[in-house]
Amino acid sequence: MRMYDLITKKQKGEELTKQEIEYIVKGYTDNMIPDYQMSAFLMTVYFKGLNSRETTDLTLAMAHSGDILDLSNIEGIKVDKHSTGGVGDKTTLIVGPILASLGVPIAKMSGRGLGHTGGTIDKLESIEGFSTSLSEEQFINNVNKIKIAIAGQTANLAPADKKIYALRDVTATVDNYSLIAASIMSKKLASGADVIVLDVKTGSGAFMKTEEEAIKLAETMVDIGEMAGKKTYAIISDMNEPLGEMVGNNLEVIEAVNVLNGKGEPRLLEICTEIASYMLLGSGKVDTIAEAKIQIENSISSKAAYNKFIEFVRGQGGNVDYIKNTDLFPKAAYIEPVYLNEGYMAKCNTSEVGMASLILGGGRVTKDSSIDLTVGIHIKKKLGEYIKRDEPFAYLHGNSKSSIEEAKIRLINAYEISLTKPISTKMIKCIVTK
Amino acid sequence: MRMYDLITKKQKGEELTKQEIEYIVKGYTDNMIPDYQMSAFLMTVYFKGLNSRETTDLTLAMAHSGDILDLSNIEGIKVDKHSTGGVGDKTTLIVGPILASLGVPIAKMSGRGLGHTGGTIDKLESIEGFSTSLSEEQFINNVNKIKIAIAGQTANLAPADKKIYALRDVTATVDNYSLIAASIMSKKLASGADVIVLDVKTGSGAFMKTEEEAIKLAETMVDIGEMAGKKTYAIISDMNEPLGEMVGNNLEVIEAVNVLNGKGEPRLLEICTEIASYMLLGSGKVDTIAEAKIQIENSISSKAAYNKFIEFVRGQGGNVDYIKNTDLFPKAAYIEPVYLNEGYMAKCNTSEVGMASLILGGGRVTKDSSIDLTVGIHIKKKLGEYIKRDEPFAYLHGNSKSSIEEAKIRLINAYEISLTKPISTKMIKCIVTK
Repeated sequence: MRMYDLITKKQKGEELTKQEIEYIVKGYTDNMIPDYQMSAFLMTVYFKGLNSRETTDLTLAMAHSGDILDLSNIEGIKVDKHSTGGVGDKTTLIVGPILASLGVPIAKMSGRGLGHTGGTIDKLESIEGFSTSLSEEQFINNVNKIKIAIAGQTANLAPADKKIYALRDVTATVDNYSLIAASIMSKKLASGADVIVLDVKTGSGAFMKTEEEAIKLAETMVDIGEMAGKKTYAIISDMNEPLGEMVGNNLEVIEAVNVLNGKGEPRLLEICTEIASYMLLGSGKVDTIAEAKIQIENSISSKAAYNKFIEFVRGQGGNVDYIKNTDLFPKAAYIEPVYLNEGYMAKCNTSEVGMASLILGGGRVTKDSSIDLTVGIHIKKKLGEYIKRDEPFAYLHGNSKSSIEEAKIRLINAYEISLTKPISTKMIKCIVTK
Repeated sequence: MRMYDLITKKQKGEELTKQEIEYIVKGYTDNMIPDYQMSAFLMTVYFKGLNSRETTDLTLAMAHSGDILDLSNIEGIKVDKHSTGGVGDKTTLIVGPILASLGVPIAKMSGRGLGHTGGTIDKLESIEGFSTSLSEEQFINNVNKIKIAIAGQTANLAPADKKIYALRDVTATVDNYSLIAASIMSKKLASGADVIVLDVKTGSGAFMKTEEEAIKLAETMVDIGEMAGKKTYAIISDMNEPLGEMVGNNLEVIEAVNVLNGKGEPRLLEICTEIASYMLLGSGKVDTIAEAKIQIENSISSKAAYNKFIEFVRGQGGNVDYIKNTDLFPKAAYIEPVYLNEGYMAKCNTSEVGMASLILGGGRVTKDSSIDLTVGIHIKKKLGEYIKRDEPFAYLHGNSKSSIEEAKIRLINAYEISLTKPISTKMIKCIVTK
C-alpha cells in the first residue's frame, strides 16, 4: 500500500477500505507517512468527503492509535458526556454529581482549557487541595465508592488525533464534518464508556454557527457512536451567549455549587437537566426522559447532588469548606462594573466574551501558558433582558487595571443593544439520536 | 500575509492577487513556507483551479525565482522550442540545424533524460568529444558565429519549479493544467527567448492521453506565453507510437543525421518541418507557413542543414567523422530481432516501448543513474503497416542477454496486431495560437 495511491483514490471520489484507512492513521502516527502527504490527503478529504463507514473506520483507527481505557472494574453502565466547547460551560461540574447521586458511575478523564474555552480540570483545581492526578487504582476506587471521579488525562488517548489535529490546524483542513467528528469521537471511544451523550453547541460562541451545521455534525457523531456499538445521543444547544452567569475558573465552580444548591440560572439549569436526563436514560436507570427529569429535580431539591459534590471533592483531597462557603475562594484584586447603553440585550458575540476572559488571564493563549484562576466575568443580564443606563450588566474580575480596561472594551463591543424586545432563542434546539 | 489565509481564500474559490502568488512562490523557495502547507495549497489548486491571470502570475513568479538568461548579446530574434516529452523524440537535433542554416539563432539550454523519455544532452554526448559544458561566453560566441549552441543547464533556472515539482510528484498534485503549464513555461520564460514553439504530445506515450486534454494544456501555455509578451505557438502532435524509427541515444543521433541527409522517416520529417516552420515564422524571416516549408525543404535538399549540423558539432568539440560516417558510433554487443504475429500493426502502448528502452539501459531510473548510450530499439514498422510472421518488426540493441529478454517481452506486449487495416492517425492534430 502506498499513501500516494490512497490520495489519488480519494481524489477520484472512491471509497477507502478499512485497511487503507488504518494504514493512513498508523503510518502517520508512526511517522512513516510525512506531513506533506498527510496534508494533501486531508485537503482531498476536505473537498471529496468521507462517507459514514469511512468516517467510523477513521474514528476507530484513531481511537486505537493509543490506550483504550479499561473501565471493566467499575460496576454498572458507564456514561460519558462531551460538549463541543463554549464559553462558561461548567455542565460537567453539575451533571456529574447529579448522575452520581442517582447511582450512575461517572469516570471522566478531562482536559485543560485552551483559547477562550475553559477546561474542567482547571476549574476543579481552583478548589484548595483538589487533586486531578489520580492513579488508575484511586480513580477506579473512587468511582466504585463515590460513583464519580474526574481526573486529568494521563493515559495516551488517541495520539493520532493529537497529531492529525495539529496538522489540520495549520493547513486549513479543520472545517470538515467527518474530520471534526472523528477527532471528538476517537477520544470518546478511547475513554471506554458504554453510553455517550454529546452536547453540540451552535451559535456565536460555537464552532458550528448555524443549527443546521450543528445537526449535521451531531448526526455524523451519533452515526459513529452507534456503529462503534455505543448508545449515543446528541443535544443541540444554544451558544449565542455564555452559559449561565459566570465565565472564569473559580467563578464557574461557585456557579456550579449554586446550581446544585437550587439557585441556578434557568437556562444553565435547563441544559444541565437535559444532558443529565439523556445520561440517566442511557444508563438504564429510567425508561423515559420525563421520569429522568423528575429524578434529577429531586436530586437537586433534596440536596443529594450537592452532597455528592461535597463527597466527590473530599474524595479527591479538596477542601470541602470551599464548597460549603464559596466566599473562601480567593478573589481577584479588582471587581469592575461594566455598563451598556439603555435597552434590550439583543445580541452577543459569545467568542468575544471568551476573548475578554482570556485577556483577563482566565484562559491559555498557548498550551504552555499559565492561567489565573481568580479572574473572569460575572454576567448579570441575559439576552432579552432590559438594561438601564446606570445598571451594571456585568462585572469584570481582574488582577491588573490594564487587562480590565482592554477586556472591558472587548466585552462592551461583544453586545448589541436594541430598543425593541428581541425574540428569545430556545436553549435546547433538538435531540439527535438513532 | 499568512499562507494559512491564502489556502482558505483559494478553498473558497476566490482569486489570488499577484502579490499573494509571489508571496507563496518566494516563501516556499526560501523555505519559509513548510512542505505541508504548500501541499495543502497545491491540493486546493487541484480542486479549485487557477484562472489564466493567476496561472500567468504563478509562472512569472516561478520564472523569476532564479536566473533569467540574458540573450541580449545574441543578434536577431531568439526562438526556442519545447516538447512535452515522448519516446524517440529527437526533434531538437533536426530542427536546430535547419533553423540555424536559415539564419535563425538557436541558443538552447537542455536537460538530461529521466524515466523513459530521453534528453537532448545525453544524445549529443554520444558524439565523441562533444561538450555540453560551455561557458556563457563560448555559448554566446557559438550562437553568434554558427547560429546554434546547445548546452547543459548550468544557470539556476526556475528553482521554484524544481522544488514545487518534487512536492507535486509525491502528493498527487501533478495532474492540473495550470500547474503543468506553469512548470513548463516558467523554465521557458527563464530561458530568455523571444518566441516559443511548443510541441504538445498526445496519445499513449504522452502525459496528455487525449487530444482534448492536449489542446487544453496548449491553450493554457499559449495564454501564459502571450501574457508574458512572447509570441507563442503550440503544435498538437501524435505520440501513439514512438517518433521515427529509433529509440536510444546513439541511435537517435544517427536517425537525426539521416533526416538531415534527406532520408527521414516521413512522420518524423513531418513534425520536424511543422515545428521548424512555426519557429521560422516566429523569427520574422518568412511571412507564411507555406513559405517557411519551402525554405525548410530547401535547407534539407541542399544539405545546408546537414552542413550546419557538422559545423555545430565541430563548434562544441565533437568528432565530425561520426556525423559523416555514422557507422563509427559504438554499437551494442547484441542486436536481436523481434517478431510479432502476422497482421497489421494496429496499436502501440508507447510508454511501454520507452520502458523497454529503459530496461536495456537507455534511460535513467533516478536522476543519479548512469546511462548506456549504445542501447536502444530500432523499430522498422510503423502503425498501419503489414507485418509478416518471419519479418522482424524491430531490433533490440542491448549489452546483456537478460535485459534483452526482459525488454523483448515488454516490447511485444506493447503492440497490438489486427487482421484489418487500422485507420491511420494524423501526425499533426492542430495548431493552438492567439
